[in-house]
Parts: sequence; C-alpha cells; structure tokens
Amino acid sequence: MSGFVSFVSAGPGDPELLTLKAVARLRDADVVLYDDLASGAILGQARPGASLVAVGKRAGRPSAKQEHVNRLLVDYAATGVRVVRLKSGDAGIFGRLEEEIEALHQAGVGYEIIPGVTSACVAAATAGIPLTRRHTSRRVQFITGADVRGQLPADLNWTALADPDSTTVVYMGKRTFPALVTKLIEYGMSPDTPALLAQSLGHADETIARTTIAQLAGQLAQDIGPATAVILFGALAGDDR
Amino acid sequence: MSGFVSFVSAGPGDPELLTLKAVARLRDADVVLYDDLASGAILGQARPGASLVAVGKRAGRPSAKQEHVNRLLVDYAATGVRVVRLKSGDAGIFGRLEEEIEALHQAGVGYEIIPGVTSACVAAATAGIPLTRRHTSRRVQFITGADVRGQLPADLNWTALADPDSTTVVYMGKRTFPALVTKLIEYGMSPDTPALLAQSLGHADETIARTTIAQLAGQLAQDIGPATAVILFGALAGDDR
Repeated sequence: MSGFVSFVSAGPGDPELLTLKAVARLRDADVVLYDDLASGAILGQARPGASLVAVGKRAGRPSAKQEHVNRLLVDYAATGVRVVRLKSGDAGIFGRLEEEIEALHQAGVGYEIIPGVTSACVAAATAGIPLTRRHTSRRVQFITGADVRGQLPADLNWTALADPDSTTVVYMGKRTFPALVTKLIEYGMSPDTPALLAQSLGHADETIARTTIAQLAGQLAQDIGPATAVILFGALAGDDR
Repeated sequence: MSGFVSFVSAGPGDPELLTLKAVARLRDADVVLYDDLASGAILGQARPGASLVAVGKRAGRPSAKQEHVNRLLVDYAATGVRVVRLKSGDAGIFGRLEEEIEALHQAGVGYEIIPGVTSACVAAATAGIPLTRRHTSRRVQFITGADVRGQLPADLNWTALADPDSTTVVYMGKRTFPALVTKLIEYGMSPDTPALLAQSLGHADETIARTTIAQLAGQLAQDIGPATAVILFGALAGDDR
C-alpha cells in the first residue's frame, strides 16, 4: 500500500484561520511534519495518537536539511500512512514546495495541496484595508525579501516593484528592506510612498504600524526587532481605515 | 446600541475552504448580506434564524446598486445587530470593499475584515503546483481582467505583466484575455509562455487546462464558455505536477 501526502496550509498563526479542510486533514493524519510554527494550537487539531514530527528551526533544534525532510516524507508515505506536511500561510506562496513535490514524484507518492490564507491577506485585513482598489490599485504583488542566503534577491523586477499604483507585499523582508528601498527610489518611487509593517500576525503581540518606505527603511536599518513580519507598500498602505 | 459589520471571506466556492473564523461569524450573525455565490452550502453555516439577504447578480434578481448595498449595511448595523457581509475568495483581493468601508466610516459603524483563501491559491493548489519557486519565480502578481465597464483596464503595467519570471494570476479575465495577450506579446513576452485555465473552482465541474498564452487567447476569442475562471501564466504554469 502506498501512502499519500497532504500539503496543508496553516495560515500565518491564528488557529482560527485554518480552513475546515485543513482541520479535517489534521484530524485524519497519522503523521504530521511541521516547521516554523509558533502556535501549538494548530498542532492541537491533530488526533491524539498522531505522530508530530518537528523538522524546522523553531522546534528547538537545528534546521533539518531539505533532503532530510524529503526523505522523511517519502519514507513515512511508503509505510502506507496518511502524512500531513504542514506549511505556514498558503503553502504555494513562498512555501518552498517544489523540492518536496519533486521528491514525491520521483518516489511515485501521490499528494494534494490544501490552499490556505496567506500572510498578505491577513496583514491587510488586520489593518482594516483591502489589497486592491477598483480604480487606483489594480495590481497586487508578493515578493520575498530573502533569497536562500538571506540576501535581497539580485534579479528582482525593480520596475514592477517601484510602481506606486500597485500594492506590494514583502514576505521575510525586514532585514533587506533598506536595500530594497534604495533600489525602489533609484527606480523612481517616492520615498514618501506609504508603507505598513505588520508584525507577529495572529499572535498576542500582533502590531500594525503605518509609515513610509523611507522611514521604515531607516528604522529597520537600526533595529529589525525579533518579530516575524510582512511589509506592505503602495498607495493603499496609506489608508487609515 | 450600534451594530457591527464583519466582512467575511468565503473562499472561491468549496465550503470546506471556509476558515473556522468565517464559520464562527456566520453562526453568530443576525443578518448575512451575500452576492455572487453559487453554493448554498456556505450560507448553510448561518444559524437557522438569521436573515439571508441577497444583494448580487446571481441571486436571481438584478444586480443591486452599490449605494443600495452600502445603505443596507448601515441600516442593518444601526439596528444593533451583528451583520456579516459575505465576499467570495479573500475579501481584500478584488472584493470591492472600499466603498462599503467608506460608507461604514461615514456612518460611524465599526467593522472587521476576516481574511480568506483567494482563488489564485486554490487554482495553483488544484493544479498541484506552487505559485512561487525559490530560484526562478520570486514574484507573484494578481490583476483583474475587467474594469467597471467589463473592459481590460487601459492603465495596467504591461512591463510588469510581461515578465516571464513572475507568476501572474488574472481574475475575471476570460473575456479580455485576447486583448491582454496582444499587449503582453507587444511588450516582449513569448506567445509560448505557459498558461493554465482553472474553471469552476470548488464546484463539481471544476477543470484545469494547461496551454500557452497565445493558444488560450485564440480559444477564448472563439468561445469564453459559461464558467467562472482564473487564468495563471508564467514559467510555473507549465509544471505538469
């Protein structure tokens, strides 16, 4: 009997933002592989007998190599059990699914992806604003501020990012935001473009701060702080409602 | 006593993609204003005594004017009840929240936005692919293919859209896709860029078709078909896994 892997999107932290389908998969799982989750409330949806296997940095041990995670997925599936691979946010957005999917393909293991709520949507909702506006903000784009080495990716499309009529959301971008803003201004974006810093989304210490791209770059160059965050910028980020 | 409005994201159709928070708000609501929903299973989450008020095109009557919806929201809230304004997908992405939020502000009515699963994430998950890939597809962008008159918006950022290294998702874009592809090719995008048409997501007749931007434009110029759809294009859309 061959097993099956469900990539389950957990949302960015608040267990109430799990979908009904994510909860169903967690309740049915024999094994749950998880990483980078601050909240035990999400894992609490798994049934009592399930094996909860930590494979990430925040689980109190060094980050497992990607190949090790791939092998665990394939090996558990080979025993014929139902495996859930839990991913924060929406699994398809900066969730690094591709290598795990490739490993399952090579091993002939079936899989499904359960979509979820991505951080950008939670950040905007928490700030009380939409990510698009009918006449003025027709394009929304998401980028990651950190490549595999933790640096600002060198080949981003600066013209696309410096467009003040789009709403841009930067994931994992606090450390490299000063370098990004230097590029944005070089490509013609106003330093006064509104920006919004959403920290610790879905946790008790959640905060939303409204500023500008230049001010936020200056602040983060001094101190990026300990919290995880997403950064929104563009005209819409200036809405105070 | 002043009421309160919860903008609740319902996801693109599958009731299993409601979040736990969306279900909780539906169960607590005294009044639910809904539009453009094909599935009664989502409304079935409301408590038996709640008033379900159709304000959209697909509810079997002519589309209500936006001002009428605004007035209904304010008037219901003024009676002190808990109002849910249901929106498909994620309310903040092409959900046209801004006018309803503005009306609530002017009337002094409090509100919250409950984020949800947007169609782009569901389309990619259904196709078994992520929307981003670590080294090659670092930017994902969403646009709407229809402005208020149903036309392709004239002021889209064609350079940003013609970037083959981004993943682009077009909402409400079947009718205008041939015009969009003409622009993309004019701005240097290859006609052979992979495209993916996801139709009737979350419904029994859901389909995923893999093609290219030029082929899809040709097909949609002949027949756009009856189903709602999202279109993905970019290198990632060519993954057959």
